[in-house]
Amino acid sequence: MINKDYSHVINKIDSLAAKIYNDFQKTDVPFLQLPTRSKSNIKFDGKLNVWKYGENTIERSAKSLDGAYMLLRTMYLADFIKEMIKVNKSSTLREMYYISEGWDLAKFHSQNESNLLAEDLEVITSCMREDFKLRPEEDGARVIGNVTIEEMTRNNTKKKIHCQDDVGDAGYSIPYNVEPEKITFKGTDADFIVAIETGGMFDRLAENGFDTSNRAILVHLKGQPARSTRRFIKRLSDENNLPVIVFTDCDPWSYRIYASVAYGAIKTAHISEYLATPAAQYLGVTPSDIENYELPTDDLTKEDINALKSELTDPRFQDSFWKGEIKLQLKLGKKSEQQALAKYGLDYVTDTYLPEKLAEMGITRK
Amino acid sequence: MINKDYSHVINKIDSLAAKIYNDFQKTDVPFLQLPTRSKSNIKFDGKLNVWKYGENTIERSAKSLDGAYMLLRTMYLADFIKEMIKVNKSSTLREMYYISEGWDLAKFHSQNESNLLAEDLEVITSCMREDFKLRPEEDGARVIGNVTIEEMTRNNTKKKIHCQDDVGDAGYSIPYNVEPEKITFKGTDADFIVAIETGGMFDRLAENGFDTSNRAILVHLKGQPARSTRRFIKRLSDENNLPVIVFTDCDPWSYRIYASVAYGAIKTAHISEYLATPAAQYLGVTPSDIENYELPTDDLTKEDINALKSELTDPRFQDSFWKGEIKLQLKLGKKSEQQALAKYGLDYVTDTYLPEKLAEMGITRK
Repeated sequence: MINKDYSHVINKIDSLAAKIYNDFQKTDVPFLQLPTRSKSNIKFDGKLNVWKYGENTIERSAKSLDGAYMLLRTMYLADFIKEMIKVNKSSTLREMYYISEGWDLAKFHSQNESNLLAEDLEVITSCMREDFKLRPEEDGARVIGNVTIEEMTRNNTKKKIHCQDDVGDAGYSIPYNVEPEKITFKGTDADFIVAIETGGMFDRLAENGFDTSNRAILVHLKGQPARSTRRFIKRLSDENNLPVIVFTDCDPWSYRIYASVAYGAIKTAHISEYLATPAAQYLGVTPSDIENYELPTDDLTKEDINALKSELTDPRFQDSFWKGEIKLQLKLGKKSEQQALAKYGLDYVTDTYLPEKLAEMGITRK
Repeated sequence: MINKDYSHVINKIDSLAAKIYNDFQKTDVPFLQLPTRSKSNIKFDGKLNVWKYGENTIERSAKSLDGAYMLLRTMYLADFIKEMIKVNKSSTLREMYYISEGWDLAKFHSQNESNLLAEDLEVITSCMREDFKLRPEEDGARVIGNVTIEEMTRNNTKKKIHCQDDVGDAGYSIPYNVEPEKITFKGTDADFIVAIETGGMFDRLAENGFDTSNRAILVHLKGQPARSTRRFIKRLSDENNLPVIVFTDCDPWSYRIYASVAYGAIKTAHISEYLATPAAQYLGVTPSDIENYELPTDDLTKEDINALKSELTDPRFQDSFWKGEIKLQLKLGKKSEQQALAKYGLDYVTDTYLPEKLAEMGITRK
């Protein structure tokens, strides 16, 4: 029951159908063109300050049988989206896959096929998945801190939730749609946002009262963060002018988590400007921290080493900080976890590590 | 800041230390005895109506070097728990693993070792992990429905949260401690509880308003449910006299999810009476449903088939319902997902499938 105007989405979808229709009218072989979605085709957009797709494109054309099926599916999907907008429903990507059972020849053969088409449709129309009323299985993450959120609920009522006073100790759960028609920020008295990889560390900072003592908003990333979590952080940061620091484990997979928050993910580079927070800074745990704080470590696996090497050629990791840290880690042959700081006791992370690192980064309590 | 009396926990821990001390005094080789924790050693407790460990025991003795280390670790862990109780902190299992860096020879060599010791200590003392202030990484799940929860928060204030009116669309997040000193139920006007495996289906039922139209409390299991989720369901059901129905995918892993809710998990059989809800009924998706509702399916993998065969010898699946369904599934060679019901549209699950199945089970709206 969100009072959003979907007319621009419907226009986009209609013009897509019109394009295919016109191709047929002109007796051209119908086709759609979209950018190549790979590491080799992302480049830095200096204006938006995020990584976007480059010039390379691929064509989905009815010249091949696979291409023809894909176009047919696109038309069915467009129809399904228009129907959902009309009856005010949304669908998971998984449900959409099963819905296609009724699409005859256009039926999807794998979930991967249907997920990919949803992304293609975003790229082609410049709309977002949320505009299509499609949503993922992924859970949104949790938030604790001095910020008031107003949520438009499923019953079409506005509900104000303060993320310390109105929630239990598990915090506020981020819904799958965090667009302005769904949630708005109604004031915050925090100085910065800490995005945290693991639930254990999120709960540690909450138990130790770091949100109060350091005027911070804690956001649990839950590993590779869901789209709604990244979008939430972006809006929270932009609209309230708050710096974002990212606190993860010390391994190549965690650096990708940071990159997806700060620079945009490769899969979603077409909407980086909605999801990425270019001002987000990486706090740690860094390979230098392993040495400086004498942290417990594990050996890098072969997969870790390959991932680190791949990051050395990833355009998002080309600055001197990342090149230096990644090379140091390859030299050390070690990785570590944020909870390894418990080596020095349960309060060490909030009493010593975070204050030291934040001071280094120039983020101190006002 | 929970005003709980931990004296019985401290007594238990102290008497454990005393036992080892006395063994030394008598110049006996110190040892601890505990039940074997495997499928072969669980049996049905007719009084408690749950599956518990049987008579088989193993001994942890200082006769072997490994056993001696284990006893040393147990003493360090006991000390750490007493300290946490004193300063009113809690620790994740992961943090405990790293804390042991300071335990000299008693240091853990893997997370598995430390997790196992925490469970052993539960078994030996008949306390629960929550009593030891130890908690897992796992996230608690989400709840939506007509029930009011009073939570004692980290600031030592009581907060009443109605799980429809006071939460956003993502619902109330279950905290990691759901014992009576932390949460209490302050009234519900629901008729039953639906425990749901996937987030997609939980959100579907929420979007379709099933909690209101069918007076149901929806609980998201998030796959294999965390301990806090099982304990929450058990207390919600017992204290409010509400039936529990479990709604999962149709595969052997989902049946284990049901078993852990209804009968108790093999790993935690020593505390089944706290975690299991013997009255919980399995709603589906069943192998019969695959046939009756002509659901989209995937082929069983080799792992699926092995898991189904293992369930045929699992004491928890020995009634005629489960034997029949498991044999049918092996014959069909197919599995299905709860979201496969979307084949018939987004409302089919709430308008047709659930009402039909609930009526079969004798659970209907009052």
